[in-house]
Amino acid sequence: MSVRMRGFTSYTKLADALEMVLSKIEQLEPEVVPFEQALGRALAEDVVSRVDLPPFDRAAVDGYAVRAADTFRAIESSPVKLRVVGSANVGSAARIEVKRGEAAKIMTGAPMPKGADAVVMVEQTKAEGEHVLVFTKLPPGKNVSARGEDVRRGEVVLERGRLLRPQEVGMLAATGNTEVRVARRPRVAILATGEELRPPGTRLKEGEIVDVNSYSLSAAVKSCGGLPRRLGLVPDDSRSLRRALRRAARYDMALISGGSSVGERDLVPEVIAELGELLFHGVAIRPGGPTAFGVIGGKPFFGLPGFPVSALVAFDMLVRPALRRMQGLPAERGYPKVRARLARKISSTLGRMEIVRVRVREEGGELVAEPIRIAGSGILSSMTRADGFLLLPEDVEGLEEGSQVEVELYR
Amino acid sequence: MSVRMRGFTSYTKLADALEMVLSKIEQLEPEVVPFEQALGRALAEDVVSRVDLPPFDRAAVDGYAVRAADTFRAIESSPVKLRVVGSANVGSAARIEVKRGEAAKIMTGAPMPKGADAVVMVEQTKAEGEHVLVFTKLPPGKNVSARGEDVRRGEVVLERGRLLRPQEVGMLAATGNTEVRVARRPRVAILATGEELRPPGTRLKEGEIVDVNSYSLSAAVKSCGGLPRRLGLVPDDSRSLRRALRRAARYDMALISGGSSVGERDLVPEVIAELGELLFHGVAIRPGGPTAFGVIGGKPFFGLPGFPVSALVAFDMLVRPALRRMQGLPAERGYPKVRARLARKISSTLGRMEIVRVRVREEGGELVAEPIRIAGSGILSSMTRADGFLLLPEDVEGLEEGSQVEVELYR
Repeated sequence: MSVRMRGFTSYTKLADALEMVLSKIEQLEPEVVPFEQALGRALAEDVVSRVDLPPFDRAAVDGYAVRAADTFRAIESSPVKLRVVGSANVGSAARIEVKRGEAAKIMTGAPMPKGADAVVMVEQTKAEGEHVLVFTKLPPGKNVSARGEDVRRGEVVLERGRLLRPQEVGMLAATGNTEVRVARRPRVAILATGEELRPPGTRLKEGEIVDVNSYSLSAAVKSCGGLPRRLGLVPDDSRSLRRALRRAARYDMALISGGSSVGERDLVPEVIAELGELLFHGVAIRPGGPTAFGVIGGKPFFGLPGFPVSALVAFDMLVRPALRRMQGLPAERGYPKVRARLARKISSTLGRMEIVRVRVREEGGELVAEPIRIAGSGILSSMTRADGFLLLPEDVEGLEEGSQVEVELYR
Repeated sequence: MSVRMRGFTSYTKLADALEMVLSKIEQLEPEVVPFEQALGRALAEDVVSRVDLPPFDRAAVDGYAVRAADTFRAIESSPVKLRVVGSANVGSAARIEVKRGEAAKIMTGAPMPKGADAVVMVEQTKAEGEHVLVFTKLPPGKNVSARGEDVRRGEVVLERGRLLRPQEVGMLAATGNTEVRVARRPRVAILATGEELRPPGTRLKEGEIVDVNSYSLSAAVKSCGGLPRRLGLVPDDSRSLRRALRRAARYDMALISGGSSVGERDLVPEVIAELGELLFHGVAIRPGGPTAFGVIGGKPFFGLPGFPVSALVAFDMLVRPALRRMQGLPAERGYPKVRARLARKISSTLGRMEIVRVRVREEGGELVAEPIRIAGSGILSSMTRADGFLLLPEDVEGLEEGSQVEVELYR
């Protein structure tokens, strides 16, 4: 039954909570987008090259295209003399042919003329009227980029799940993939509940506070590829909540901030249970403990804490991996990780995973993580001053100054 | 004069090239945007809080608001008995007053009732009809979040130059900053030159290749906050180039790929010099050497190599820091850096900064960087397979297997 007004009797461990969340999350169906709009998206299918790259044998250096066999007798003191029969340019098909005893001037990237199978660098030659002296032996294929040596037609060049960076966008262009199937971006409904909340910019009366979470959570959703939709403030009575949550179930995911703790007005977990299934309420993390999760109409619903710091930390721990999985990315937080030395001792509560916000600085060639001194989860500046965070597991009471830690960097 | 058909006689060192670039780059003028659209932008001014945070003294725990002086005699074995005069809720101004010998029920986040100056946790009390027994002494201020303890009205909460992440968006909401001045995003003209180029999706004839760089460079510009505008393919004759570069000078920056080497048709550096000032041509990096930089009409112009890998590497080394400075961010590449162990020996050319693309994997708790075996700057798959890169300075001939290296991670 309800934990309201009784306090959490037990908390779900973070690892278990995350497992329950992910058991309800599937990759969304893909959509087709033009390749030049695919930056930052994840591939929903393997991408196969439609062409060979390079598309033809081409010179890898500036010099002369030759028949390698003609150079086999060349040495520094006794060069081979070849007749120059033309010039092979970038952008024009090789109309010339190089026969025995002949060579053609060639620029980097130009198609190899017929008959030629190697390129001698201009530095290893000397022009002599209509002839060129070649001072070195060349094996066949020397300084030639062979057709298909980068990518072969029909080859898988980018695998399903790959995040598309600028170089992948280039690869799509190069391989003739002008459209690409990517995971659809999750549409995320964002609600905030609490009768004390007012929209930003409102002149507050005594006891009122600004709705921060609708905005910071929207930004957090955007920053991991989702499409946030703010559905506004919801009064904290059951009827209003039921109506709002039913509406939110039209989205791919819903985040409700506030109303997820154990006070009289913390009705969100109950309403989730009533309309669907509540999987957990209360997670053994600090900050972020008063977090609930359930499913309504097949859609994942997160009840997040009202305190802004707690809401963002719970988002990082549980929502980010879920949003990433929906997009076909690994179900991780996805922040880059660095190793650092802890600047001072920190202590923690046994039984809770502590998320410690830190500043990171370089000092004598190594990274130093400085925990931010905070006075509770109400202190938003503890997150704006942070470069990242580290995790203190449930069974750790603290860490000594100088310990090696792994820091995840906010982006 | 020109280096065309003579080869680079000298290369500008990367550090010197970057210094010349940055000497021509200034932060763009700011623009005002709604705070909820400011994610990922950099502040163009210090942001000052318009309010105290919290906006009023509030309970930090669930329990009873009391006058601390009333509890000074309380001990575990002899509790103090106080009369409960009401309940202070979140979202309603404290209409009740706590007098000597009295207490009020209070929820976390609720405003402190008049008269009360401490909160005793519910676990340290026992309800007894209309009274409550308090089993512990409380100093004044205990379990109270004082008005302004997070942020004081008039305090600078976010400094000029700060990149706005989800928590900063939340801070803007909380501090009443519904509009914010951020650096304008640079509009970047992107051109590609080379008569062999065709747009992606075209059926190629012998000797033709796809224009990759217009698209990969657009994506690269986007990925560091710029607004790319592809101006298309430009024939590689002086007249067409002059016209195209004049048009590009209406943007904040221009990138021209191709035509920046030392071949007969490599006219870009000459045309930059003719229309404005050419600062360097040829940079001691590999890949990316055939890079030029100049200024036309006060706008920075980059001549980038035609090979896709070279173009993206030159972009990372020289253009990214410039685009970041325009946005008020530190003039760095801005990629996260990690330390790793080199998986195998690599060698390099003296006198050139070598940019070695690597895969990064975890192995026994440490990161291992595996250099990608490549066959030249024409190999685009060398970048799509890479997680990041490391730099081998000009005076280093190579690195042994097992060396500690610093890897910059692509995002």
